[in-house]
Amino acid sequence: MQYYVDGFRPGDPDIKPAATNAPARGAARVLPEEVDVLIAGCGPAGLCLAAQLAQHPEFTTMIVEPKPGPIEKGQADGVNVRSMEMFQAFGFADTVKREAYWVNQTNFWMPDPANPAHIRRVGRQQDVADDQSEMPHTLMNQARIHELFLNVARNAPTRLEPDYGLAVQTLEVDTTTEDHPVKVTLERADGTAHTVRANYVVGADGARSNVRKAIGGQLHGDAAHQAWGVMDILANSDFPDIRMKNLITSATEGNVLILPREGGYLFRMYVELDKLNPDERVANRNLDVSDMIAAANRIMAPYSIDVKEVVWWSIYEIGHRLTDKFDDVPEGETATRNPRVFTAGDACHTHSPKAGQGMNVSMGDTFNLGWKLVSVLKGRSDPSLLHSYTAERRTEAKRLVETDHKWARIMSAPVGESELDGGDMPRFQKHFIQNLEFTGGLAVQYDSSALTSGDARQSLATGEPIGKRFHSAPVVRVADAMTMQLGHVAEADGRWRIYAFAGEGDDGTQGGEIAALCDWLETDPASPVVRYRRADEDIDAVIDLRAIFQQSFDRIEHNALPSLLRPETGALGLRDFEKAFCVDHKSGHDIYDMRGIDRAKGCMIVVRPDQYVAHILPLDAYGDLAAFFAGILLP
Amino acid sequence: MQYYVDGFRPGDPDIKPAATNAPARGAARVLPEEVDVLIAGCGPAGLCLAAQLAQHPEFTTMIVEPKPGPIEKGQADGVNVRSMEMFQAFGFADTVKREAYWVNQTNFWMPDPANPAHIRRVGRQQDVADDQSEMPHTLMNQARIHELFLNVARNAPTRLEPDYGLAVQTLEVDTTTEDHPVKVTLERADGTAHTVRANYVVGADGARSNVRKAIGGQLHGDAAHQAWGVMDILANSDFPDIRMKNLITSATEGNVLILPREGGYLFRMYVELDKLNPDERVANRNLDVSDMIAAANRIMAPYSIDVKEVVWWSIYEIGHRLTDKFDDVPEGETATRNPRVFTAGDACHTHSPKAGQGMNVSMGDTFNLGWKLVSVLKGRSDPSLLHSYTAERRTEAKRLVETDHKWARIMSAPVGESELDGGDMPRFQKHFIQNLEFTGGLAVQYDSSALTSGDARQSLATGEPIGKRFHSAPVVRVADAMTMQLGHVAEADGRWRIYAFAGEGDDGTQGGEIAALCDWLETDPASPVVRYRRADEDIDAVIDLRAIFQQSFDRIEHNALPSLLRPETGALGLRDFEKAFCVDHKSGHDIYDMRGIDRAKGCMIVVRPDQYVAHILPLDAYGDLAAFFAGILLP
Ligand SMILES: Cc1cc2nc3c(=O)[nH]c(=O)nc-3n(C[C@H](O)[C@H](O)[C@H](O)COP(=O)(O)OP(=O)(O)OC[C@H]3O[C@@H](n4cnc5c(N)ncnc54)[C@H](O)[C@@H]3O)c2cc1C
Ligand SMILES: Cc1cc2nc3c(=O)[nH]c(=O)nc-3n(C[C@H](O)[C@H](O)[C@H](O)COP(=O)(O)OP(=O)(O)OC[C@H]3O[C@@H](n4cnc5c(N)ncnc54)[C@H](O)[C@@H]3O)c2cc1C
Repeated sequence: MQYYVDGFRPGDPDIKPAATNAPARGAARVLPEEVDVLIAGCGPAGLCLAAQLAQHPEFTTMIVEPKPGPIEKGQADGVNVRSMEMFQAFGFADTVKREAYWVNQTNFWMPDPANPAHIRRVGRQQDVADDQSEMPHTLMNQARIHELFLNVARNAPTRLEPDYGLAVQTLEVDTTTEDHPVKVTLERADGTAHTVRANYVVGADGARSNVRKAIGGQLHGDAAHQAWGVMDILANSDFPDIRMKNLITSATEGNVLILPREGGYLFRMYVELDKLNPDERVANRNLDVSDMIAAANRIMAPYSIDVKEVVWWSIYEIGHRLTDKFDDVPEGETATRNPRVFTAGDACHTHSPKAGQGMNVSMGDTFNLGWKLVSVLKGRSDPSLLHSYTAERRTEAKRLVETDHKWARIMSAPVGESELDGGDMPRFQKHFIQNLEFTGGLAVQYDSSALTSGDARQSLATGEPIGKRFHSAPVVRVADAMTMQLGHVAEADGRWRIYAFAGEGDDGTQGGEIAALCDWLETDPASPVVRYRRADEDIDAVIDLRAIFQQSFDRIEHNALPSLLRPETGALGLRDFEKAFCVDHKSGHDIYDMRGIDRAKGCMIVVRPDQYVAHILPLDAYGDLAAFFAGILLP
Repeated sequence: MQYYVDGFRPGDPDIKPAATNAPARGAARVLPEEVDVLIAGCGPAGLCLAAQLAQHPEFTTMIVEPKPGPIEKGQADGVNVRSMEMFQAFGFADTVKREAYWVNQTNFWMPDPANPAHIRRVGRQQDVADDQSEMPHTLMNQARIHELFLNVARNAPTRLEPDYGLAVQTLEVDTTTEDHPVKVTLERADGTAHTVRANYVVGADGARSNVRKAIGGQLHGDAAHQAWGVMDILANSDFPDIRMKNLITSATEGNVLILPREGGYLFRMYVELDKLNPDERVANRNLDVSDMIAAANRIMAPYSIDVKEVVWWSIYEIGHRLTDKFDDVPEGETATRNPRVFTAGDACHTHSPKAGQGMNVSMGDTFNLGWKLVSVLKGRSDPSLLHSYTAERRTEAKRLVETDHKWARIMSAPVGESELDGGDMPRFQKHFIQNLEFTGGLAVQYDSSALTSGDARQSLATGEPIGKRFHSAPVVRVADAMTMQLGHVAEADGRWRIYAFAGEGDDGTQGGEIAALCDWLETDPASPVVRYRRADEDIDAVIDLRAIFQQSFDRIEHNALPSLLRPETGALGLRDFEKAFCVDHKSGHDIYDMRGIDRAKGCMIVVRPDQYVAHILPLDAYGDLAAFFAGILLP
């Protein structure tokens, strides 16, 4: 964590200095007539975007929410490892790690063949595979995640706070102008309206999205919704695995999913209502929490739950649905028109809670969109970059829906006819194992495009698949011998990163490939570092280079490293000591081995601001590197 | 981290529910006429105490500070591993780990024999020995540590905030009454006075303590103070190890200590002013920061520093000094009179900054005093318990001073005549290595007393020395397979802990020694758990039992454990799942091996509320356990 680069400031370093143009808040707040970005909705999608945009006082952001204030409980609770990695970039992964429940093991319970009225444990599975991520899979109240994002936005230079009690009613895009072309009608709780003109609007306004409707988006998918009863309860139970995640299938009473939660006492139960007996199914809509508790007790026999407090409950009826387009540009017009309005999260795709994806995919959407909007609004990229949001995220959402459908088919095949049958392990558990990467959010892989090079040299880093998230590993920071995760240098700051892995013997001194690369990057007019950096900016404002060496930290002379690896930055021109890393020889976790980096040659891994691997190149592929960035950035 | 035991509450779990009697703050604040505890001074000693007492709405605490508000910078910055372990119990170790500089390596620089005008690196040393602590040694602005303690106090049930602009002027103890016998005169910034009567007063009011003076305490020790110039600077340098801790000895220009600091750019330099040439020494008092910078540049030749911002500087002149008594009871009267007034931290002992102990020892004082005051104020212990504060902490402070003197003698012996001379390693570095335990705060060992049994069976746990802090190690929590540090179950909540290590084969089921111990503890009238718990309290309110098993987590049936290991607690009677642990077989870090626990027999380790090992007993030594607590607690 780096701070004080512009001079010392007392207090909490997460509270950034306020920008001089940060708008007044509280009673003094006047709703603006014009904004650069209007975000509709304070769910995970909207707040994840707000937390990113709030960092930039160069443009104005507004986020509106019809509710009178933040939610306090309920909705989703699963934070997969990929989202945790993203939280790290926002600075609050440690808070979640401390407060949340960690899903370490998942158990599988099935009817006991000797007495099918009773369940018994048939399997137990480690929940996050070894070295799948440096992060745990956690469970935590969605409201608390909201609060953590709200803190990031509030502590950012623009001191962004949501405008509560305001809903997007409708909007219109004027395609004849580039000057705040989106006219948005906001409705106050008292029914009065306020009009705001925006350059961009992001509809993160949930499954009943008005923004989606305004741009003519249609949700397609399962007509027959699945109904789930969900309850967050404080309860005692004689069920032996009550503090682990459990998938429970009963013989005749239906299925239950148990998810322990933060704090050590709370847990969530999902009761699959469609699997209840027909009488009850018909009455789904009239069920209440006592019916759910009764059903859970029947399903869990011989065990039972004794509920002390129902914290929240809901009948959550939702299917896998997907919108044809995540922005306002009709299919045929992408070449001639750039998007002005986007939908994100539940507004454009919904998922069964069983997959545990709702919150995660929604945040993933706006983590993808955020840096692109910033890049365009700062004039660093052409607005056509924004087409890539739909291209990338709709494809991912579609894969998610398809994967889930595929597995639903396999899982619901008659006993003995599923490809998962046979062997000792129950179908459930095999399915679970095969889906770990997917449920962890790690299966996301962007197709080749301007942002994800098709020419990448995958063989130079076999463990960092192009288009997938950059997979962190331990390293030691040269300047202070700090053992840390390389991936944790990435902050949610919209910057590109190049990780330059040195070849064998290269210690960064002049004559080596790292030094040559650095010198070219720092001085050559064709270098992307030189081309895209503005006169008043730090050398690493747009592209942040880090180097990794194979020697141990005490074999690298920091002073002998090329100047790009120890640049002077900030208002005071202070030297940055956090650019050079080396292999963690003491722990034996060698990043070259762990990520299949070519030891002899080394390589460059270009990583997008949202942590996805964009390109892999030999250390001397200067031309290719320049060409890659020329497709994305404007000089 | 456990929460929601009394029901769900939205928001940050570190913000505890406010007690109904929490006093009004801000403009509505009225200074009380009577309090249970008055703390003088908002330094590390006072704030560490306030953070503990603030948890208890059963009595009233007031903390006064003459300054108009919290300090923003300066003073001490070293947080040793022992203090980090203590911060863990307060819940903010993770914050410090994230924000602070970690001292991983220390370097030693000496004159180059080939060119004595230049320094060269002669040694490099890992700063915290392997498995010395699970915590790093960190460096961070004292003001930020203050802020973290202030947050704990502010978020506690009593919502405790300091009363700024108020100094203790003097006080008198009325030895004829037990009802608020200490009359304290407080002085406001405008010179007006307010009188408050207190049951206890703690003078954490620094080196010029008025409280010490009021009880007749005399500081003894070095008449000739050492003078240090200290500066916190944002600076660039070509010194190769500028982001590591360095001890630099020049041939003729004196010595410098470099301490990198939080945020990646800031660092501190200590310039030993007494070692400067005689002309300068005489003028010590007139030196300013530019003289220090000049001296540092001469000492570091051929390297130099280019200062961009001086954040804070001071000529810090202090010696090792010690008060004869840390409370108000004269030596001869301890049998007939109990203490009412205490001094803590710099108020009763001061240290050279070279030892890096000032802040750490000060917090250690009030971590020792805090639980004792709570125990007495809640009627759980006889007030004579408070004599142990002086007994334990003065002995420790004395050892600290003696150790430092001893080393000063050894280090200042003429070349060739010190016991540290000879071999390749410089004197400096040998001294440093031999002092790692000491500077880490881990050498503290309380003598045998009512609180630290002399009869303990050290052979049952050879790696947990009696009287030293309980040394944590990794374990896996049975109920949820969570890998964690056993020592992190200890919170700064004033409770005693018994760690019961199961013998070979014992899996906690009936018939085993753990089950027998638990049953006795839970039900026998002679059991300390039964005797000292009040009717309306949780079974673990006073003594918190945890058990550790040798099997892996999936070999322990949580439901089969004795009920004391899965008690129902809190307002809702919710089951606690965080009492049973087992060996971390996967990592190979076996707590039995690491801490020398007798595998065959197991043992009980009794740990004080301040994390020190009080007793070690066989699992069946019920009588000894009862006798031990009978010497401390009241039924
Ligand atoms: C009642 C409920 C229960 C759920 N239960 C589960 C569950 O058990 N498990 C699970 O995995 N997922 C659950 N979800 C889904 C999960 O919460 C979502 O997938 C996730 O929150 C999606 O994030 P989002 O930001 O896209 O949308 P949301 O979290 O739905 O946020 C949308 C926000 O937009 C606001 N909004 C609505 N209309 C407008 C408007 N016109 N203008 C501006 N703002 C508007 C809404 O008030 C809301 O705050 C639940 C969702 C709901 C609503
Ligand atoms: C200027 C300065 C520089 C220092 N520099 C270093 C350093 O470089 N390295 C190092 O290791 N240590 C340094 N120290 C020492 C280190 O800060 C202390 O060892 C540590 O703070 C001790 O904590 P404490 O709580 O006992 O006392 P302090 O931190 O001194 O706190 C005492 C508090 O009591 C208040 N107070 C004073 N009089 C009264 C009164 N009559 N009534 C109520 N409150 C009162 C003071 O304002 C102060 O806030 C420095 C201390 C000072 C004062």
